Amino acid sequence: MSDHASVLFANEAFYIAFANKDLEAMTEVWAKVAAITCIHPGWLVLTDRDEVMASWEAILVGPGSPEIFCEQAVAHVFGDTAYVICYEVVDRDTLLATNVFVRESRAWKMVHHQAGAAPPPPVEDDDPPPNMMQ
Amino acid sequence: MSDHASVLFANEAFYIAFANKDLEAMTEVWAKVAAITCIHPGWLVLTDRDEVMASWEAILVGPGSPEIFCEQAVAHVFGDTAYVICYEVVDRDTLLATNVFVRESRAWKMVHHQAGAAPPPPVEDDDPPPNMMQ
Repeated sequence: MSDHASVLFANEAFYIAFANKDLEAMTEVWAKVAAITCIHPGWLVLTDRDEVMASWEAILVGPGSPEIFCEQAVAHVFGDTAYVICYEVVDRDTLLATNVFVRESRAWKMVHHQAGAAPPPPVEDDDPPPNMMQ
Repeated sequence: MSDHASVLFANEAFYIAFANKDLEAMTEVWAKVAAITCIHPGWLVLTDRDEVMASWEAILVGPGSPEIFCEQAVAHVFGDTAYVICYEVVDRDTLLATNVFVRESRAWKMVHHQAGAAPPPPVEDDDPPPNMMQ
């Protein structure tokens, strides 16, 4: 699997853990050696591992835990570090996320997540619209 | 100069270019070889160099170009890649930013910027408050 594909796989694991409200899987997503940071929408930055994990516990196990879908993820890889930009569709809202990963013990692990409000993602047109095909 | 200091210097150059509304300096801040991406608050992600630079031109030369101050910047360095988290104080609003840098030709260059709304940064207390010193 290419580094790009592996990074996107790690990014997908983050959103699967989020969607499944699986705190154990979410804990696995994050780096164990490197320091981690997290910026939830409208929050102060969290810079302590216990604070980051407590925030995910509050989000995932809370009664209002939202449905979430990741769309249009694109990975940018620089050796053993990478970042992914993707849209997050949460209920009727859209967010844009920056997710930073580093390679730890041969696996890509998240070291930073920031999400903020964004317009709906543009429609992905693989084919030209019908009126352009004539 | 340590890598941490060099990365913070590059981050500072970004905010000085922003504060001075200096498009030429802003252009210098960004990577020339690597692909670049940018997420302004409430915008779609910009993934094309011309789009990113056009956005900065619009922001910097526009009549409503805001005052901006960077506070509490912290760098996280991973070899030739790094990211900085910092607060941006813009008029009366506060944003939190993720700025990603890579080393290009021995200089740290920005490859990604995301800023989103945040609460005011916590007060940095180097000294205990007066009533705690008695």
